[in-house]
Amino acid sequence: MKVAVLHPGAMGASVAAAIGTAGHDVIGVTKGRSQATIDRARGAQVSFIETLEEAMSMVDVVVSICPPEAALDVARDVQETGYEGIYVDGNAVSPQTAVAIGELFGNRFVDGGIVGPPARRSGTTRFYLSGALANDVVGLFVDTLVTAQVISGGAGSASALKMCYAAYTKGSSALVMAVRALAESNGVTEALLAEWDLSQKGLRDSSERTALGTSPKAWRFEGEMLEIASTFDAAGLPAGFHRAAAEIYERMAHFKNEDPASLDQVIETLLDKR
Amino acid sequence: MKVAVLHPGAMGASVAAAIGTAGHDVIGVTKGRSQATIDRARGAQVSFIETLEEAMSMVDVVVSICPPEAALDVARDVQETGYEGIYVDGNAVSPQTAVAIGELFGNRFVDGGIVGPPARRSGTTRFYLSGALANDVVGLFVDTLVTAQVISGGAGSASALKMCYAAYTKGSSALVMAVRALAESNGVTEALLAEWDLSQKGLRDSSERTALGTSPKAWRFEGEMLEIASTFDAAGLPAGFHRAAAEIYERMAHFKNEDPASLDQVIETLLDKR
Repeated sequence: MKVAVLHPGAMGASVAAAIGTAGHDVIGVTKGRSQATIDRARGAQVSFIETLEEAMSMVDVVVSICPPEAALDVARDVQETGYEGIYVDGNAVSPQTAVAIGELFGNRFVDGGIVGPPARRSGTTRFYLSGALANDVVGLFVDTLVTAQVISGGAGSASALKMCYAAYTKGSSALVMAVRALAESNGVTEALLAEWDLSQKGLRDSSERTALGTSPKAWRFEGEMLEIASTFDAAGLPAGFHRAAAEIYERMAHFKNEDPASLDQVIETLLDKR
Repeated sequence: MKVAVLHPGAMGASVAAAIGTAGHDVIGVTKGRSQATIDRARGAQVSFIETLEEAMSMVDVVVSICPPEAALDVARDVQETGYEGIYVDGNAVSPQTAVAIGELFGNRFVDGGIVGPPARRSGTTRFYLSGALANDVVGLFVDTLVTAQVISGGAGSASALKMCYAAYTKGSSALVMAVRALAESNGVTEALLAEWDLSQKGLRDSSERTALGTSPKAWRFEGEMLEIASTFDAAGLPAGFHRAAAEIYERMAHFKNEDPASLDQVIETLLDKR
């Protein structure tokens, strides 16, 4: 099969590499992409075509992997080319956004949600897929580092799963960093850590690891947190957890592509940006 | 010393019992209290006096342990009697509320924050204290089930510590229950649990234990979550985590004094109350 991946960042490049490993041709689109994106994707054996129109006339499957706030625009751009193949949205969007994208492609739409880091070794990264043609997409990943798995429920289900998963992991990460900043702001850091060491063992270390792990990626979490907030809203549940998390990650966005920041640096940033 | 405890619920009764164990006389006030409160406190060796005025004329120390939304009113009522002794606020209030209470009592104010469950065995429950006379209050708890501990920083510090501690524990508890409700609402519970079993081991069980553990107490968490939200606001940090948590616990308030509710019951309640 010929598969376009739009537009590979770190995660998309690893997905593109997996599809290539499975024996398919992977195509990217040059136009509008940065040199860094193109170089990264070339490393993943992606062939580049200049325009979206030309690429869409060549491929059987499109896999969209982009920041959540761009997902609907990418889908509209593809639909406007008259593309008639399978469209997979692999982005961290609400089920409502996924359904809106799906309406552009009808039965040719497959909803996706990726859990885990970019796939550099086996067993870490799962690509959940839902929709009538989800099984066809699983075939793109046979014997690769990406575990593709169909879940029931149709368009929106894979996105809902991604939202629920990230709601806890990234929500609780934002919360623990916010709490450490609150303690520092109130001059009770040492007392809090002493109490955590007694009754919440591991939380001191995990708050420190969370800062290191999230700081370089925080810039792209704000949009995801807002999609999660919309998902809570649509379910009639309180959306405030993730609107607050979006604000935490937005304040940390300047760590983009830097070395992992220490918790002290994160706290300073969270309190400076008030 | 003669010590008044105003107004003992489950936690207050265990604090009153500890003070009694240390050899002090503990006094409660009958007026305005329910029979359940009086019976519980009598079990903790509290002697009852009918009016607040009379009680205040007898005691050296007042310890206020009440729902956070009542803390300032209780303090004002005490101050209006002309009381001249030490006033300890042991409630889950923001440092700003603690400072407002402190202004009623000047140097006679001791800020407190209790971490842990009602003290039924040793080592589970710490009463943090801050303020000029904090050491005097530690003397009320020598060789008892309550570990009293001074922290530096003056009025507001003990409350800030309590806020930070509960911000993570009760905030993440509300979050995990909200996420389970979100998954159920979207029909992806089984898929989420399968993924958690792979990459977030323990979260399935802890979400179930959280429902059992918090449901009978949720009714009194709403006010505490709102105090925490105010604490975040005052520090220039996002308050949405705990406004959302307040809403989760408010929806669960009807489980008050019932047997622990299962996660299924909690989810049903969270989704029913939309």
